[in-house]
Amino acid sequence: MGKVICIGLGPGDPDLMSVKAHRLLTNARHVAFFRKAGRKGKARQIVNGVMPESAAEYPMEYPVTTEIHFSDPEYNRILSEFYEDWTERLAELSKTDDVIVLCEGDPFFYGSFMHLHSRLQGKAEVEVVPGITGMSGCWTATDMPITWGDDVMTVLMATLPEEELVTRAKETNALVVMKIGRNLPKLRRALETAGRLDDAWIVEQGTMPGQQVRKLAEMTDEVPYFAIVLVHGQGRRP
Amino acid sequence: MGKVICIGLGPGDPDLMSVKAHRLLTNARHVAFFRKAGRKGKARQIVNGVMPESAAEYPMEYPVTTEIHFSDPEYNRILSEFYEDWTERLAELSKTDDVIVLCEGDPFFYGSFMHLHSRLQGKAEVEVVPGITGMSGCWTATDMPITWGDDVMTVLMATLPEEELVTRAKETNALVVMKIGRNLPKLRRALETAGRLDDAWIVEQGTMPGQQVRKLAEMTDEVPYFAIVLVHGQGRRP
Ligand SMILES: C[S@@+](CC[C@H](N)C(=O)[O-])C[C@H]1O[C@@H](n2cnc3c(N)ncnc32)[C@H](O)[C@@H]1O
Ligand SMILES: C[S@@+](CC[C@H](N)C(=O)[O-])C[C@H]1O[C@@H](n2cnc3c(N)ncnc32)[C@H](O)[C@@H]1O
Repeated sequence: MGKVICIGLGPGDPDLMSVKAHRLLTNARHVAFFRKAGRKGKARQIVNGVMPESAAEYPMEYPVTTEIHFSDPEYNRILSEFYEDWTERLAELSKTDDVIVLCEGDPFFYGSFMHLHSRLQGKAEVEVVPGITGMSGCWTATDMPITWGDDVMTVLMATLPEEELVTRAKETNALVVMKIGRNLPKLRRALETAGRLDDAWIVEQGTMPGQQVRKLAEMTDEVPYFAIVLVHGQGRRP
Repeated sequence: MGKVICIGLGPGDPDLMSVKAHRLLTNARHVAFFRKAGRKGKARQIVNGVMPESAAEYPMEYPVTTEIHFSDPEYNRILSEFYEDWTERLAELSKTDDVIVLCEGDPFFYGSFMHLHSRLQGKAEVEVVPGITGMSGCWTATDMPITWGDDVMTVLMATLPEEELVTRAKETNALVVMKIGRNLPKLRRALETAGRLDDAWIVEQGTMPGQQVRKLAEMTDEVPYFAIVLVHGQGRRP
C-alpha cells in the first residue's frame, strides 16, 4: 500500500526545497505534476537534476486555461472531469507504490493540488509536505523584511476587481499580490489610487535563474512573467 | 572574509528545513540565536542533532520581554542597545568566518533577525535564507487548504485591539492569527463577534513533537503555548 504525497517544492531554487521533499523526490518512482498544454511544467522544471531519470512521469495537462472564462459552467465541468480522472489514476497507482505530486511553493497556499486532495479523501492515503511559498522567496529577494511588529499583512490575487484592490491596498500595512500577468495595468492603477504605488516592488521569477527585482513604478512592461508584487510593512521597530 | 547568514529553520520539524539551511548548519562553526532569559531558545531546539557539537554557540538573550511595556521609551532604548551590541559582535566574528543566525520559520516574516539585518548594513556581508513559515506548517497540520481561487488572506497579530481584530476577521476570506498567548480570550471574543469562531482552528506547536490541532470553539485553555489560529478560505473550486 502506497500513498499520494504532494510535496511543496518552494519558490524555485531547488536548494530551497525541504530536506524531506528532497529525500522523497530522490527516491521517487512515480512523479505527477500539473502543466499547461505544450509547456514543460513549472514544478517539473524545478526538479530537473533532482528527480531520478528512472522515475515514471505523469504530466497532468490542464484541459482549459484561458480559452473559456471561469464563470462559464462549461469551464467548471471540464476542469472537474479532469480532476476526477486524475484522482482515479493517482489513487490506483498508490495501491502498490507511493506517488509523488509536485507543487510549486506550498501546496495548501493557492495550489492546484487541493482539487485532487479533496477528491482523494477515502480513495487513497494522502500526505502533504509544506514548502517555502513563492512570496517568501520574493520578499527575501528584495532584501527587506515584509512585516515588523504588529503589521497586518494582506495577500491578494490581481484577478480581483480594481475597486477591491484599491480598498484592500489602502487598509493594510504589508501587501502581497499574486497572479499578476495581464492584470498588471489594473493593479498598477489600483496601487496608484491607494497611494501605494511608489512603495511597491515587483519580483519576477523569484529565486530562479531569471530573477528580476524592480520598483513597480519604474517598470514599463505590460505583462510580467511569473511575478509577485510586494509592499513592505513599516511597523514598530526598536 | 565571512558573512552573517540568517537561515530560516521552518516551522519546527527539522526535516522541513531547506536543503540549503541544512547544509549551512551542518558545516557551521559559529551559531547565534535569540532566546528569552532562562530558556533554551526555540530556534536552537529545532537544530538539536543537526548542528555540529563543535560549533561555538552565541545565545542572544533578550534583556526585556514583558516586564516593561513596549510603549515605554525605556523598552525601546534597552532593546536597541541589545541589537546594537550583537550587531557589533556578529560583524566582528564575520570578519574571519561565516556566522549562522538561526530563525524560526521565515526570517523576513515577523522575525527578530530584521533588527540586526538593518543595523548590519555596511558593517558585514549579510545573507538571508527563506524558510517555511510557521503558518504553512500549521495549516498543513489541519489537513485543509488555507486558500482557494481568489480568496483574500489576512495575517494578524493577536496583540491588536479587539475592535480591529473584529473588523479584519469580518472582511477577509482566509485568516491567520499569530502571537496568541494571553491574547486568546480577546481573540476568541473578536472571532465570535465577527461570526468566525465556529470555523476557527488553533494549532499549537505545529509540526513539533507536542503538536495539537483543535477547533478553537472546543478549546477551554486560557493561554495556549506557541500557537496559530486559522480560519480557512472557502473560495471558488471546480
Ligand atoms: C497559483 S499561485 C501558487 C502559489 C504557490 N502554491 C506558493 O505557495 O507560492 C501562482 C502564483 O504564485 C506566484 N509565484 C509563486 N512563486 C513565484 C516566484 N518564485 N516568483 C514569482 N512569482 C511567484 C505568481 O504570482 C503566480 O501567479
Ligand atoms: C514572532 S513570530 C515569528 C514567525 C516566524 N518568523 C515564521 O515565519 O513563522 C512568532 C509567532 O509565530 C507563530 N508560530 C510560528 N511557528 C509556529 C508553529 N510551528 N506552531 C505554532 N505557532 C507558530 C506563533 O504564533 C508565534 O507567536
